[in-house]
Amino acid sequence: MEKIRIGIAGYGNIGRGVEQAIERNADMELVAVFTRRDPKTVSTVSEGVSVLSMNDLHLKKDDIDVMIVCGGSATDLPKMGPDIVKYFNTIDSFDTHAKIPEYYNHMDEAAKGGNHIGIISVGWDPGMFSLNRLFGDSFLPQGDTYTFWGKGVSQGHSDAIRRIPHVKNAIQYTVPVDEAVEEVRSGSGPKFTARQMHRRECFVAAEEGADLKEIEDTIKNMPNYFAEYDTTVQFITEEELKEKHSKMPHGGFVIRSGETGKDNHKEMMEYSLKLESNPEFTSSILVCYARAAYRLAKKGESGARTVFDIAPALLSAKSPEEIRKQLL
Amino acid sequence: MEKIRIGIAGYGNIGRGVEQAIERNADMELVAVFTRRDPKTVSTVSEGVSVLSMNDLHLKKDDIDVMIVCGGSATDLPKMGPDIVKYFNTIDSFDTHAKIPEYYNHMDEAAKGGNHIGIISVGWDPGMFSLNRLFGDSFLPQGDTYTFWGKGVSQGHSDAIRRIPHVKNAIQYTVPVDEAVEEVRSGSGPKFTARQMHRRECFVAAEEGADLKEIEDTIKNMPNYFAEYDTTVQFITEEELKEKHSKMPHGGFVIRSGETGKDNHKEMMEYSLKLESNPEFTSSILVCYARAAYRLAKKGESGARTVFDIAPALLSAKSPEEIRKQLL
Repeated sequence: MEKIRIGIAGYGNIGRGVEQAIERNADMELVAVFTRRDPKTVSTVSEGVSVLSMNDLHLKKDDIDVMIVCGGSATDLPKMGPDIVKYFNTIDSFDTHAKIPEYYNHMDEAAKGGNHIGIISVGWDPGMFSLNRLFGDSFLPQGDTYTFWGKGVSQGHSDAIRRIPHVKNAIQYTVPVDEAVEEVRSGSGPKFTARQMHRRECFVAAEEGADLKEIEDTIKNMPNYFAEYDTTVQFITEEELKEKHSKMPHGGFVIRSGETGKDNHKEMMEYSLKLESNPEFTSSILVCYARAAYRLAKKGESGARTVFDIAPALLSAKSPEEIRKQLL
Repeated sequence: MEKIRIGIAGYGNIGRGVEQAIERNADMELVAVFTRRDPKTVSTVSEGVSVLSMNDLHLKKDDIDVMIVCGGSATDLPKMGPDIVKYFNTIDSFDTHAKIPEYYNHMDEAAKGGNHIGIISVGWDPGMFSLNRLFGDSFLPQGDTYTFWGKGVSQGHSDAIRRIPHVKNAIQYTVPVDEAVEEVRSGSGPKFTARQMHRRECFVAAEEGADLKEIEDTIKNMPNYFAEYDTTVQFITEEELKEKHSKMPHGGFVIRSGETGKDNHKEMMEYSLKLESNPEFTSSILVCYARAAYRLAKKGESGARTVFDIAPALLSAKSPEEIRKQLL
């Protein structure tokens, strides 16, 4: 079998997850990992993977079918995405929801210029949650959609705490409010404030002698991040933080409740995820969309795509005949 | 706005559901309902809908963009599907899982011959449940998929009871076994027999003086339908049956549990439906796939398709820009 040749650009949690996801898919092989660090200082999860400088991407232009671009959405991807899609088919997990339209347009232009496919905003949110929001909105046009996240670590909120003076390290969990989830499932179509849907649990390691009350107040009053939520702050040692809070679980629900027929029958669709490793699950999705990008590029297509544009059959390693027989 | 012109071929529960779903979608209009009964004897849910004989389908060839074929899978669709797709783009909900590959091939040939699109096996199972089995199988290649149905009315099982001598009427509910659902959700990857996953609840109205014990035994020992399950049979009056059991609720779950990464982290994906009206919800999905068929046909595509082949964006009444902005 001819394998799909994958490259990884950016080697953080997601990059390492992609490396391991490729191992679980027999139709793919990892060609190289590209990093902005000194390649000599980077050791990969599996042995024998070549690690190259991000500056040498173009040297592998003919050896890689799809590049999975694993950069941050704030500053990395807006530049890396359009640069790389000129030379490779790409997959990324751009997740700044408000800037997706702008990013899509830049990627579409660059991808068409390079005659490549660039599938953006892949993962579970944006990604599978988006698909379920679309299905809900389409099938039940009169209804309400609710997205709950957690319980899981929010990297952005954890970083916001770490930037506070005298904080050594911190982890923030986003937690859906049980009562809100149950109310949505009852089909009553409730309206919520942010505070009613999620609460925030913070675990903080502070410097010795720091004013804990001041740190706690700073967290709880931080606008956009914490002020709009019921937030709890617990101070623990750096060792305890490392020991008990270094896993990256996550999950959540997308629920659509709506009505059908002249008697307004209530219908409820729910999609939920419970993940022990957020980055590994995200990566497992990314490699399937890499398979789709490979197939679309083979058909001569080019331009930006989102999960909305990808026919599900393209994600599967199985043939159309097999999936009709086994999974339909 | 130019509306998508829909026809309904076959006017049972699903046909009536489609009629009502069209009312909820501003970009569609119902052109006509076709029936095998005498059209004069058929009254529609909404006023002013033309009802025509199934023999006159071809008269509306130029007035209908997509025909939603609402026939039974056992005997109706294998003949109606290929006949109708020669003249119209079609949607159907063919649900005899074992015969889907054969039906697909017949539909593909007929659809290509007529230069039309025929999307088969649309609904929630086959349909949305199939998509979730595909996503699970693709994203978590090492794992187990479980499909639970219910609590809901199984038409096939209800019919099987009704064919027993001295039974006037009957309804059968398929019920998932709670303990099995919980065990699956725990991520233990259990293996089940049919009996361990679902039980069957039967409500039967018998003729006066009938041997109830004999009817109960006949039901409980019926191979393929009941013998492999824990089945309860309750005799009630025909009035009670009509009063308490004439709704058509249904639902179910597709759960994929699998592992990621070198440390075998457990990941769980669950899709669930809770429906007050099974035929109305199914119909709500059918009309969205009719929108997709319309768009594919406009692009000049032809042949059979399944839900696996349809890019989700094609289902939405909203533009690609709107869905990227609002739902991604």
